[in-house]
Amino acid sequence: MIRKEKFGDEILKAHILVEALPYIKKFSGKTVVIKYGGSAMLDCNLKKMVMQDVVLMKFVGLNPVIVHGGGPEISSFLKKLGIESKFVNGLRVTDEKTAEIVEMVLVGKINKEIVSMINELGGMAVGISGKDGKLLKAEKDLSNGDLGYVGKIVEVNIEVIEMLIDRGYIPVIAPVSFGDDGKTYNVNADTAAGKIAEALKAEKLILLTDVEGVLENVEDKTSLISRMDLEHAKKLMDSGRINGGMIPKLKCCIKAVENGVKRAHIIDGRLTHSLLLEIFTDEGIGTMIGKECFDDDNL
Amino acid sequence: MIRKEKFGDEILKAHILVEALPYIKKFSGKTVVIKYGGSAMLDCNLKKMVMQDVVLMKFVGLNPVIVHGGGPEISSFLKKLGIESKFVNGLRVTDEKTAEIVEMVLVGKINKEIVSMINELGGMAVGISGKDGKLLKAEKDLSNGDLGYVGKIVEVNIEVIEMLIDRGYIPVIAPVSFGDDGKTYNVNADTAAGKIAEALKAEKLILLTDVEGVLENVEDKTSLISRMDLEHAKKLMDSGRINGGMIPKLKCCIKAVENGVKRAHIIDGRLTHSLLLEIFTDEGIGTMIGKECFDDDNL
Amino acid sequence: MIRKEKFGDEILKAHILVEALPYIKKFSGKTVVIKYGGSAMLDCNLKKMVMQDVVLMKFVGLNPVIVHGGGPEISSFLKKLGIESKFVNGLRVTDEKTAEIVEMVLVGKINKEIVSMINELGGMAVGISGKDGKLLKAEKDLSNGDLGYVGKIVEVNIEVIEMLIDRGYIPVIAPVSFGDDGKTYNVNADTAAGKIAEALKAEKLILLTDVEGVLENVEDKTSLISRMDLEHAKKLMDSGRINGGMIPKLKCCIKAVENGVKRAHIIDGRLTHSLLLEIFTDEGIGTMIGKECFDDDNL
Amino acid sequence: MIRKEKFGDEILKAHILVEALPYIKKFSGKTVVIKYGGSAMLDCNLKKMVMQDVVLMKFVGLNPVIVHGGGPEISSFLKKLGIESKFVNGLRVTDEKTAEIVEMVLVGKINKEIVSMINELGGMAVGISGKDGKLLKAEKDLSNGDLGYVGKIVEVNIEVIEMLIDRGYIPVIAPVSFGDDGKTYNVNADTAAGKIAEALKAEKLILLTDVEGVLENVEDKTSLISRMDLEHAKKLMDSGRINGGMIPKLKCCIKAVENGVKRAHIIDGRLTHSLLLEIFTDEGIGTMIGKECFDDDNL
Amino acid sequence: MIRKEKFGDEILKAHILVEALPYIKKFSGKTVVIKYGGSAMLDCNLKKMVMQDVVLMKFVGLNPVIVHGGGPEISSFLKKLGIESKFVNGLRVTDEKTAEIVEMVLVGKINKEIVSMINELGGMAVGISGKDGKLLKAEKDLSNGDLGYVGKIVEVNIEVIEMLIDRGYIPVIAPVSFGDDGKTYNVNADTAAGKIAEALKAEKLILLTDVEGVLENVEDKTSLISRMDLEHAKKLMDSGRINGGMIPKLKCCIKAVENGVKRAHIIDGRLTHSLLLEIFTDEGIGTMIGKECFDDDNL
Amino acid sequence: MIRKEKFGDEILKAHILVEALPYIKKFSGKTVVIKYGGSAMLDCNLKKMVMQDVVLMKFVGLNPVIVHGGGPEISSFLKKLGIESKFVNGLRVTDEKTAEIVEMVLVGKINKEIVSMINELGGMAVGISGKDGKLLKAEKDLSNGDLGYVGKIVEVNIEVIEMLIDRGYIPVIAPVSFGDDGKTYNVNADTAAGKIAEALKAEKLILLTDVEGVLENVEDKTSLISRMDLEHAKKLMDSGRINGGMIPKLKCCIKAVENGVKRAHIIDGRLTHSLLLEIFTDEGIGTMIGKECFDDDNL
Repeated sequence: MIRKEKFGDEILKAHILVEALPYIKKFSGKTVVIKYGGSAMLDCNLKKMVMQDVVLMKFVGLNPVIVHGGGPEISSFLKKLGIESKFVNGLRVTDEKTAEIVEMVLVGKINKEIVSMINELGGMAVGISGKDGKLLKAEKDLSNGDLGYVGKIVEVNIEVIEMLIDRGYIPVIAPVSFGDDGKTYNVNADTAAGKIAEALKAEKLILLTDVEGVLENVEDKTSLISRMDLEHAKKLMDSGRINGGMIPKLKCCIKAVENGVKRAHIIDGRLTHSLLLEIFTDEGIGTMIGKECFDDDNL
Repeated sequence: MIRKEKFGDEILKAHILVEALPYIKKFSGKTVVIKYGGSAMLDCNLKKMVMQDVVLMKFVGLNPVIVHGGGPEISSFLKKLGIESKFVNGLRVTDEKTAEIVEMVLVGKINKEIVSMINELGGMAVGISGKDGKLLKAEKDLSNGDLGYVGKIVEVNIEVIEMLIDRGYIPVIAPVSFGDDGKTYNVNADTAAGKIAEALKAEKLILLTDVEGVLENVEDKTSLISRMDLEHAKKLMDSGRINGGMIPKLKCCIKAVENGVKRAHIIDGRLTHSLLLEIFTDEGIGTMIGKECFDDDNL
Repeated sequence: MIRKEKFGDEILKAHILVEALPYIKKFSGKTVVIKYGGSAMLDCNLKKMVMQDVVLMKFVGLNPVIVHGGGPEISSFLKKLGIESKFVNGLRVTDEKTAEIVEMVLVGKINKEIVSMINELGGMAVGISGKDGKLLKAEKDLSNGDLGYVGKIVEVNIEVIEMLIDRGYIPVIAPVSFGDDGKTYNVNADTAAGKIAEALKAEKLILLTDVEGVLENVEDKTSLISRMDLEHAKKLMDSGRINGGMIPKLKCCIKAVENGVKRAHIIDGRLTHSLLLEIFTDEGIGTMIGKECFDDDNL
Repeated sequence: MIRKEKFGDEILKAHILVEALPYIKKFSGKTVVIKYGGSAMLDCNLKKMVMQDVVLMKFVGLNPVIVHGGGPEISSFLKKLGIESKFVNGLRVTDEKTAEIVEMVLVGKINKEIVSMINELGGMAVGISGKDGKLLKAEKDLSNGDLGYVGKIVEVNIEVIEMLIDRGYIPVIAPVSFGDDGKTYNVNADTAAGKIAEALKAEKLILLTDVEGVLENVEDKTSLISRMDLEHAKKLMDSGRINGGMIPKLKCCIKAVENGVKRAHIIDGRLTHSLLLEIFTDEGIGTMIGKECFDDDNL
Repeated sequence: MIRKEKFGDEILKAHILVEALPYIKKFSGKTVVIKYGGSAMLDCNLKKMVMQDVVLMKFVGLNPVIVHGGGPEISSFLKKLGIESKFVNGLRVTDEKTAEIVEMVLVGKINKEIVSMINELGGMAVGISGKDGKLLKAEKDLSNGDLGYVGKIVEVNIEVIEMLIDRGYIPVIAPVSFGDDGKTYNVNADTAAGKIAEALKAEKLILLTDVEGVLENVEDKTSLISRMDLEHAKKLMDSGRINGGMIPKLKCCIKAVENGVKRAHIIDGRLTHSLLLEIFTDEGIGTMIGKECFDDDNL
Repeated sequence: MIRKEKFGDEILKAHILVEALPYIKKFSGKTVVIKYGGSAMLDCNLKKMVMQDVVLMKFVGLNPVIVHGGGPEISSFLKKLGIESKFVNGLRVTDEKTAEIVEMVLVGKINKEIVSMINELGGMAVGISGKDGKLLKAEKDLSNGDLGYVGKIVEVNIEVIEMLIDRGYIPVIAPVSFGDDGKTYNVNADTAAGKIAEALKAEKLILLTDVEGVLENVEDKTSLISRMDLEHAKKLMDSGRINGGMIPKLKCCIKAVENGVKRAHIIDGRLTHSLLLEIFTDEGIGTMIGKECFDDDNL
């Protein structure tokens, strides 16, 4: 029929919308905590696409919560101020001056950029830090020696996040924490995302990274693991076959799943629309970790 | 990049989802009354696609309400019972016996088929008739002479529909009405859809038909009107250039828009996913009628 | 006093209203599921009285829910269509064609008649079938051999009923069920009423029948049992002294009481205002079955 | 039929219940303010019947509010304390000492007796005075000279009453008022009932009196007026044909209707169940006053 | 600075307000049941101050509930009526006549005086008795022989109190109770306050008395106990070193704490602002009894 | 009495609490927008006291909202980064680089310091910027020539603030605004506070400044105006007798009062507890501006 040809492209598009229906249905009303960082944060184009994905998720009924890192912007800003960045085991040594700059960059710059972008794309975001509504309480993390104001989270108070979700906002969280000592603590964004996901009893924790996912064999690029259960994940951790940078991320996922998050995902933020691809397709694109069986993942 | 190639198709699909975002946003929480009838009701495949479109609309935040006709099934059933179908001006002469059969087919067969199909596709539908909760009150329509129990709607009570929408259900309505005389009245489904859309102050009234839309020149298939304002529509009505079957449909749309429905659409139900195409694309596929200007239709 | 004589009749009436007070108080806010069928459905006068009773119950604070059968109307309609009614053990053999007709008569005719009558009497009814809101899910019942689309209920979803009750409506239910296979199943109305009463944790399940109640001795018309506890009822079932038609009804009552319905009643629908008599008088008129003791029935 | 004979009386009772249905329906959810006083308060039997009527009204969906007087009990108590009762134009001269005793008898005795009786009959009553929640503010009424702490109501604050009604309680009000001067004022119970009915926008104000109603001709016992509109009532007031004791009562009714109460009734509290008779029968038993027409009183 | 001198006094006052902050914070939203009686009830000045304290408590976020006694006013009124007061073990022998007078004085006089005073001071009080909303059900207390209508509380129904608190009112309770026998029972106000505190799961029960608190050694005025745990309190009770009048008060406190009230206080009502002093200062002014440890009392 | 002496100080304190009662009552539930800046922001001690005052206000029932400036910290930070501060008419010339730093200091440093301090003092604060929830939309302010990203507010969306207030939080607002052009605009904090107060229909707008208030005669330090109505305020504005720095502040107050804020205050932030003194004392300490009359200010 002539008409069908004329509208061929549009009909195809409609088909694709309808294909997403089972996923939309499945995750309707569910909370998804997204750790946003790495390349997806630096490339202007990717940034916008991530935020489009987030706004779409919100409009089709999911409740995305964003926890973001800071990365290179912090170092670059410290440099401008003539403050040297020191690292121990890949962790930034954080004196009071540095902690202040970290907070300014995370809360006063990156957080607001994300908020603005979401708002421009038609969502409604509110950006907060771990100090607001006493969201994240930390104390000094001494597990790698005394690195100054590097904290570990000891209490999560999700009241503000729940209020924002209830009222239709997308919470954007800069994981700067407060201590009972009145000090500001810098905490790891992956860990913060994990802890928040646990407290929210989230359906999903998704870590946007700069790798394709977890590899069964770190040397074999084709050995990407699509799905694994806790047992598999723990064995892998113990095997020593995991890449250094992946270790804390996998640990964070395992902990989250152990503490009630249904699925934890490590996905490639460098890929366009990786969030949608992971959530709205059967196969996914990265690595998904769940407690035991995945029977209920068959739509 | 290799990865991008690998996921090329999926990324394209994600792009398409994101393209729908502005429309999803625009119509979020809005009510759309759909008159379902004609070919879209007979072809099994089309039927399923219409219902998929409806369920998708629900899940991405719109509130679809379906008003359905009966058409050929009624005649075929009457025939089985040896009751002859008589028509005056294209309107069925409806004695008490016929009215009873019309009700049984509409309420007891077609309505439940639609409900079942929506439920199978993952939505939650509740089917009611114009008698339930006193939804549609009618009295004898004598405008074409006495055709028996052919009614015109004199009162609409949308309380039940609003309750169903509020609680996440998709209302499916068989437009069989009650009279103060305790009788059952058969009313035109287009008109019923229009009246219900008015009472709900719906964002859209969409009539699924077996034509492409309204033609400026009934003899010129390429003269489809994409958008027209009330003035244009009324002039066209007066011009006598409208096809006979289109007249009541256009009248119904004009009235609905005059009484507060924001946009009325006449679209081609024979086209796959015509509902999605009309709502989720800029150009649309049929004819849209609005009060005055369409400035706010530019996304 | 002169005045008192003048208003003698009215004062008597007022006395009678006041006599009902303890019962009204006792059942205020309680749910009563009524299986409506048999003679009470055929006689025009009785029909109206049953519905008056139901509306009165609603207005004085009870929550009546009606589940109706179809009976003779179905057979008569099948006959008109030249479809022969076959029965095995008193159960209708139901091929797809027959199932379709059953649904049309129950949902499209009888259900709407009840709804209309309640509405005319001042109540607000909404009629639904077991497909609406996925109320009744069934699968093929093979306990009497393969009788076609005769189903047994495997899942009850009372969300819609509760919503209707909450908002002041009287739910009227045609017990046509859906299967996971997309088919329509005809289920026994008594059983459906019982299952719904269980799911609603109803105060009462009342079966309107064409007999006076349960007889201790089937041959002795004066041996009507007014009240019996579960033990008594089960013994009677096992005794073989029960009339054939009564067996499934008594079974249904026993099951309902075992599953949490407080009282199940088998009453004579042929008697004027039997519903009110059973609920609003101490002695009642039929047979009441309760779990153990009836101490709290003494007002 | 034998059965019908056996249950003849009960069926008659059920008929009578059903006869009340249109009235129950009509007044469902409506507020009725009842001035309780006179003989209906003194005779133990009548007392109980009035309260039964009130509880029944509550259970069938009306919202009764009782405002009571004190009458003879006050005088008798003052006498016991050796305080002489003085009257000017039928109004009690009320010094501070007397005001205190009036309050004690009304609030501490009569009010609690009514509350207890309602509670015993299965209702839930809460008794308050005009001081509670600042319900009734008064100032000295000098219209009959200075009679001491005789007040006229200048402000009504119905918040507490509405709260009690909302939560299912029957408010019982002793019309003792507070003044801005910190003093206690005795106010007329009829007037208080009228003012409260106005503030509540009540459906009905009912004054229980010791006469049959308003007579067209005070000398002709058979000239009882069943219904009159405001114009009629005012003419009668001006005619001088009204009995002295009736004047303030009729005035109070006229004012209430002028200020928005739909119907005001003057009925004979000496008659058994006079409240039910007036509300639940067409003819009523006393005098009903309405704004203009009574068309909507035809059920 | 000059300005500071000028506003010196005001600044000091502000400092004092701020000093109260930790206490306000600590008790925000908590319920405090206050037994009001003794000297604090007789002295006009003290009376006003107690009520000011209560209103302040309400406005800064606590929920005070007042239970009052009657004391000397009852005896004086009985005397006026020529009724002799008889006492057995300090308990008033209460015949029906006496019970009536007790109720009139408590409910119709003292209760309303308290309500008026609170209202004048800007709070909103509603006064009720134990009969209203079936708050306090009692039966004859025979533990000291048959003293007539002296009751012990057997059931507490706090629904009305909770409703009043929810809506911002201060409940004022005259502890006159009803019996299932339809009689009025006089109950001890301390005990009533305790029972109500238990039912409300109150944060605090405060007994305003005419002594400074509990003394470790009844002969040593300086041995006031500021805080004691249950064990300490019980030992003291058993030691026989407690003054006669204190015994029932201490018993009442012990019982309340055992049944879930967090802290019970016995304080000196003769002291100006004793309520505020006990609640809003660390040291307090009387005796506080708690379950076990007081660690959380350190602000 | 000995006891009274012993507790003399405490009793005095209680007296002072009670003295605040009329003010607490008067402003209960009212919203107060406080512009926090100047010396009160720099002195560590004053800072803490202001925040204590704010927390106290919250706990005694007011709804404080804080809008803060940045002042010297911004300049000092720009200096560290080697960016020179340029001013035109006292307004900072703001290029994109500067706007970014302003945002980082206001949102990422000062805002969080205020939030932390309030949280430490027992309140619950949430800090947001004008971008969050689209609170403040601005466009370039060209009234003083093109100063770069200096904005004037064109839209206020208080939804987030109202949500925070409703849930018991103290909103702390950094007045950094977004433009439709996606840019960040620096807006004047006084003006932002005024606009927010208008949108909230606040009871009070309070500007904390470094002067005592408005002087009738700028040269006469003793000519402080305690209260003035709009007319007075406008005359003063026109008189030219106002100090330069005061002009925009007075303008802002006039506009706020014209647009519905009940009272605007200019007070001396250098004075200890100036907020409490202004709100909780009759005389106040600064200048109060109201629409017309102040009769209702007499407690």
